[in-house]
Amino acid sequence: MTKEIIVQKYGGTSVADIERIQNVAKRVVRTKRAGYDVAVVVSALGDTTDDLIKLSQKITKTPSERELDMLISTGEQVSCALLAMAIHKLGEDAISFTGAQVGILTDNSFTKARIIDINAKRIIDELKSRIVIAAGFQGVNKANDITTLGRGGSNLTAVALAKVLGAKSCEMYTDVEGVYTTDPRIAKNARKIDRLSYEEMFELASLGAQILQPRSIEFAMKFSVPIHVRSSFSEKEGTIISKEVKAMEDIVVSGVAINKDEAKVTICDVPDKPGIAAKVFKDIAKANINVDMIVQNVSRTGATDISFTVPGVDLAKTVKVAKEISKKINAGDVTSDNHIAKVSIVGIGMKSHSGVAATMFEALAEAGINIGMISTSEIKISCIVEKKRGEDAVRAIHDKFGLGKK
Amino acid sequence: MTKEIIVQKYGGTSVADIERIQNVAKRVVRTKRAGYDVAVVVSALGDTTDDLIKLSQKITKTPSERELDMLISTGEQVSCALLAMAIHKLGEDAISFTGAQVGILTDNSFTKARIIDINAKRIIDELKSRIVIAAGFQGVNKANDITTLGRGGSNLTAVALAKVLGAKSCEMYTDVEGVYTTDPRIAKNARKIDRLSYEEMFELASLGAQILQPRSIEFAMKFSVPIHVRSSFSEKEGTIISKEVKAMEDIVVSGVAINKDEAKVTICDVPDKPGIAAKVFKDIAKANINVDMIVQNVSRTGATDISFTVPGVDLAKTVKVAKEISKKINAGDVTSDNHIAKVSIVGIGMKSHSGVAATMFEALAEAGINIGMISTSEIKISCIVEKKRGEDAVRAIHDKFGLGKK
Repeated sequence: MTKEIIVQKYGGTSVADIERIQNVAKRVVRTKRAGYDVAVVVSALGDTTDDLIKLSQKITKTPSERELDMLISTGEQVSCALLAMAIHKLGEDAISFTGAQVGILTDNSFTKARIIDINAKRIIDELKSRIVIAAGFQGVNKANDITTLGRGGSNLTAVALAKVLGAKSCEMYTDVEGVYTTDPRIAKNARKIDRLSYEEMFELASLGAQILQPRSIEFAMKFSVPIHVRSSFSEKEGTIISKEVKAMEDIVVSGVAINKDEAKVTICDVPDKPGIAAKVFKDIAKANINVDMIVQNVSRTGATDISFTVPGVDLAKTVKVAKEISKKINAGDVTSDNHIAKVSIVGIGMKSHSGVAATMFEALAEAGINIGMISTSEIKISCIVEKKRGEDAVRAIHDKFGLGKK
Repeated sequence: MTKEIIVQKYGGTSVADIERIQNVAKRVVRTKRAGYDVAVVVSALGDTTDDLIKLSQKITKTPSERELDMLISTGEQVSCALLAMAIHKLGEDAISFTGAQVGILTDNSFTKARIIDINAKRIIDELKSRIVIAAGFQGVNKANDITTLGRGGSNLTAVALAKVLGAKSCEMYTDVEGVYTTDPRIAKNARKIDRLSYEEMFELASLGAQILQPRSIEFAMKFSVPIHVRSSFSEKEGTIISKEVKAMEDIVVSGVAINKDEAKVTICDVPDKPGIAAKVFKDIAKANINVDMIVQNVSRTGATDISFTVPGVDLAKTVKVAKEISKKINAGDVTSDNHIAKVSIVGIGMKSHSGVAATMFEALAEAGINIGMISTSEIKISCIVEKKRGEDAVRAIHDKFGLGKK
């Protein structure tokens, strides 16, 4: 009889040292002995990836991305080999694989590659007889060059494997007990959420909750892979992320997120003609810059200001590109601000409840916090505020919606 | 017009830190700009391989060899990516490859794999347009599992690449200026040798000169790949290793080597019947133990003692096997001694000069050093002496043959 398959993913903090790797091995072996076939995805040990990047920075501030992937992909290769050894030591058979060996084929976007296909033949074979350990975060392109999937890429590896293996569950082990109503370091009364829909988790992920990368949620949602976010240091149930179920709708706001890593750019006096916005954002996309919020006000004078937010690290590049665009389209000054924080509320229930935005703005007003930009979606409302008031904003909103522990 | 190809191999000490990697990059770029196509083979940074092995030892003293190769092969992957970046920084194009990407196909002997074939298509293509950097020491077996070639395996990678690329020369960069008449740490007046035949280098390598591993010399000899052993910290010419040329024959003794890592095992009272020795060493080979010297004296009593030397690390295993053999063949006690050193002289000229052995024994006698075992070949004479007198023996012989600086 074919056993059910469980995919477990362990992040860097879960495999930060030998003792923790041994703990992970115990948990994997326990799952195996409970009657499942187990495929494990591991990240690099602790800060290994950052350390390798720092090493490369000593040589050049702008390393070739192909070579950077060659370099940093070694981190997961180390941890998966060590985990295999630790599992052997506990008397179970296990075999480790690099991304290339797992058969993870990606496109050519070094440092942020997308998975195109997984040729899982070998690991499907191996899973029948032993525990399979896959290096997270990495794959190969068609030329057989090593690629990496970007920060949090190990989660993507895990979800993708869970999908091709038809896994019963994809367990994401981390150093917190699940997804919280907000960052517990910001609001002490933050509460663990038991269940979330993919859509909510997607928005929370995009918004800076560090646990799961948006792309992995997107992938899980697309293929209905149930995810269980839980702690590798505890036996408690964590947060289950699955398709929306009826009960979720009663919860108007699931969580409050904050992202301090964005910066705002404004192109002033943009001529208000059809196709102008398209032109602006096409050029920015060409420069490989991911735009998040976009706000354009109604034009009163034949010209308007277009503001948008981008990752803080891309600010200099963005301003340069924006200035070129401004010149090209006959717009005005380009201004920027990286002293901002984006505070967002997310909840499936928002769809069917009115007045949620008003309550959020009220919370901010009561705390004396000014709103710079607003952007809304079906299940999310985001406000840009001053960076130094960001955490105050989170606490005010978290309390206003009564999200904390009772 | 096709350019001539030079293969350069840089050992761990040559790439021990970022500054040294940058120095290596300069040398590589200089060679490229001098009009050659350059393929570079690098070892892991400094002590990386040992550090990784130590890490695995924290988990288990007997790691799976497959997983060990998975683990330690990351060392060269890191150094070749960093070297590529350093070369880019100097304005030349370069691309790094793992053993798998280079197309180095090996057998399944993890931790000491043998190269079966090299599918060099990709690097031959790449060499036309840029510098190619290959991770030394590693390959893949047919199942696409990562293998390593054993200690010194990077040299083997370099020689094998030089062969398939039809390189003009294979330069082995190390932290010494070439091959010396003996270890300069033992005899201060040791002299750099300008030219050596493959055969001599092979014997010197087998005998403990740490510079080139016997297998790589064997390979170079088989395919007539000229090797140039030289320092990465100096511009001086090093030692050229090539086919025997006439002038070499005038030099009776090229060098004196010492190996302190062997141990001696004696099986006493072995019945003197045909086929007994074969039986003994077949069983030892089955246990994967490499026997070096073998001495069996003439039998006077219908029984004889067989002594042989093995790597010190294999001593316990060897004694166990030897005891089993002794029982099976009705022999006597098994004794062992790891306080030994093997001192050897090597020279192509020995073939045509007599009295060389006598001079060596005389040197030892004058120094009051007792000889435990003797073994000779066409171009080598080895004596086992007490370990604590080993270096005295080297100095005595080195002086007796007048090998030091004039």
